[in-house]
Amino acid sequence: MEAARTRQNRLTKPAGSLGRLEDLSIQVAGITGQPRPRIIHKAVITCAGDHGVVAEGVSAFPQEVTPQMVANILAGGAAVSVLARQMGARLAVVDVGVAVALPPHPNLYPFKVAYGTSNLAQGPAMTREQAIRSIEVGIAALECELSAGLDLVATGEMGIGNTTPATAIAAALTGLPVSELVGRGAGVDDAGLARKIRAIEQGLRVNQPDPTDALDVLGKVGGLEIGAIAGIVLGAAAHRIPVVVDGFISTAGALIAAGLCPQVKDYVIASHTSVEPGHRAMWDCLGCEPLLDLHMRLGEGTGAVLAMNLVEAACRILDEMATFESASVSGKE
Amino acid sequence: MEAARTRQNRLTKPAGSLGRLEDLSIQVAGITGQPRPRIIHKAVITCAGDHGVVAEGVSAFPQEVTPQMVANILAGGAAVSVLARQMGARLAVVDVGVAVALPPHPNLYPFKVAYGTSNLAQGPAMTREQAIRSIEVGIAALECELSAGLDLVATGEMGIGNTTPATAIAAALTGLPVSELVGRGAGVDDAGLARKIRAIEQGLRVNQPDPTDALDVLGKVGGLEIGAIAGIVLGAAAHRIPVVVDGFISTAGALIAAGLCPQVKDYVIASHTSVEPGHRAMWDCLGCEPLLDLHMRLGEGTGAVLAMNLVEAACRILDEMATFESASVSGKE
Repeated sequence: MEAARTRQNRLTKPAGSLGRLEDLSIQVAGITGQPRPRIIHKAVITCAGDHGVVAEGVSAFPQEVTPQMVANILAGGAAVSVLARQMGARLAVVDVGVAVALPPHPNLYPFKVAYGTSNLAQGPAMTREQAIRSIEVGIAALECELSAGLDLVATGEMGIGNTTPATAIAAALTGLPVSELVGRGAGVDDAGLARKIRAIEQGLRVNQPDPTDALDVLGKVGGLEIGAIAGIVLGAAAHRIPVVVDGFISTAGALIAAGLCPQVKDYVIASHTSVEPGHRAMWDCLGCEPLLDLHMRLGEGTGAVLAMNLVEAACRILDEMATFESASVSGKE
Repeated sequence: MEAARTRQNRLTKPAGSLGRLEDLSIQVAGITGQPRPRIIHKAVITCAGDHGVVAEGVSAFPQEVTPQMVANILAGGAAVSVLARQMGARLAVVDVGVAVALPPHPNLYPFKVAYGTSNLAQGPAMTREQAIRSIEVGIAALECELSAGLDLVATGEMGIGNTTPATAIAAALTGLPVSELVGRGAGVDDAGLARKIRAIEQGLRVNQPDPTDALDVLGKVGGLEIGAIAGIVLGAAAHRIPVVVDGFISTAGALIAAGLCPQVKDYVIASHTSVEPGHRAMWDCLGCEPLLDLHMRLGEGTGAVLAMNLVEAACRILDEMATFESASVSGKE
């Protein structure tokens, strides 16, 4: 990091004038241990799972949309598919918990732990063993991508109803009231929002997740794709790969990872602030300042892929710009 | 725009969930008249000029840095060179007012109007005729790029001392006090900042630019590269090309263009908010909401090229995403 910082100050620009891009390049240097890191191989990993809590009427869309959207992502027609193509990033989907069997696809990891979670409003969403396995799935997916070459990874998710467990995790780990954190997800109406708040509050009351035990929180009020995202963050940090975390649900995964191993925070790059009200508090909890604020609330990895471009730009600037000496440019008077 | 808006609502995502990207795609549809605009050919045009006002000690860097940085930009070693390369955008430099003769280069437009401006603190920076010619240079450069194919253009600038005329223009056109708008530019110290404020206030007093006459403002307290940027904005709007406006100095150029023809505001895409204090007020004056806030203050076109990626993403999403019907995805319940 020190070598990167020194080089930034010798590049042909006023010191500090590239603002957050300079900080970002120094962070990536620290993560990778490379004073001039190069971002060649990029991948987005979108984790898919279903949620028993949809029985409470918390989502605007029916559960069948989860496998339909997985197919759409894999066929190249979803927003994250378009953005990954533009970014030149590989896109993989992990089936960690979709409620139906999915047909095989070369870009689909068939790592299903369960056919969806149980209804967290009525009891634990999953067993502790399932929570552990969902995290291991994320680590396994990350390591599969690693073997194809990986300099930068982005998280994403697809799972109808998954802002509900993400909000429950946020409430459990930040200690803030559900009413301050909750939002409309994919666009639930007023009655649905009231049901969602009730389901989350009931889930926290019934399950009593222990905020000092992230595995307990994940298992009782979380989701399988959220566990897989936690695994991606843990795996990326262990392998010194910078990980760009997407929106509200991905950030819940990062919170679980940080609960298990606080040092992962240094490896996380916060992509954007979602419209979902609780997102900001989750970033604050991670000590991260998001790069973008484009009023997005889609998930899938869309915000993370957009931010990948900034990470690559930051690293290319550090690596490719001329110095005052090499370009014979005069310095400050 | 109506056709683009309708299509956005049929794409496989909750309506509105891509936030500003959706608005951006609808704006570009309106600018171009294409319901599904494609961004293939991209160019950054960096306008270079020098400033007589540097005699007042307003800048941290010596004037010789302007031609040195032009050479660095053309050689590929400047920040904007790196970012344009990453973005797949052509990069052209316009010599509209560098104080020395520049060697020819295939990517340099040798359109010099004068060897720098006069000292605006002592009298008009240029004649009204020179101000007109600087704008015509920008239009000419835009039209040269147009002939090579152009779907999206970004402005940029290089000119030691040019935050001083940009601040003077901002003060003249927004009516706000210099002390609220002024900043440290490339990093002037406290004494330099005091000299800069004095030079701008004196320039406004001596020249009495007429805020209802943007050409008068440009000629008396502006800069040649700022006039060329105004020309790029006017030319882009006339040819229905979306124009991504960069930082503090480029925005001064857009303000001049909007003073001459208020309708150009609809064709401007605001790239980012600079650290320079007056930038926000200038965007407000244009009715623009910037896309990025990365604490940058470099200019050259760097913020604009980063924002180009968002514009391309917005248009690709509109064009390439599947609809609920085409992907057989269920809609809201």
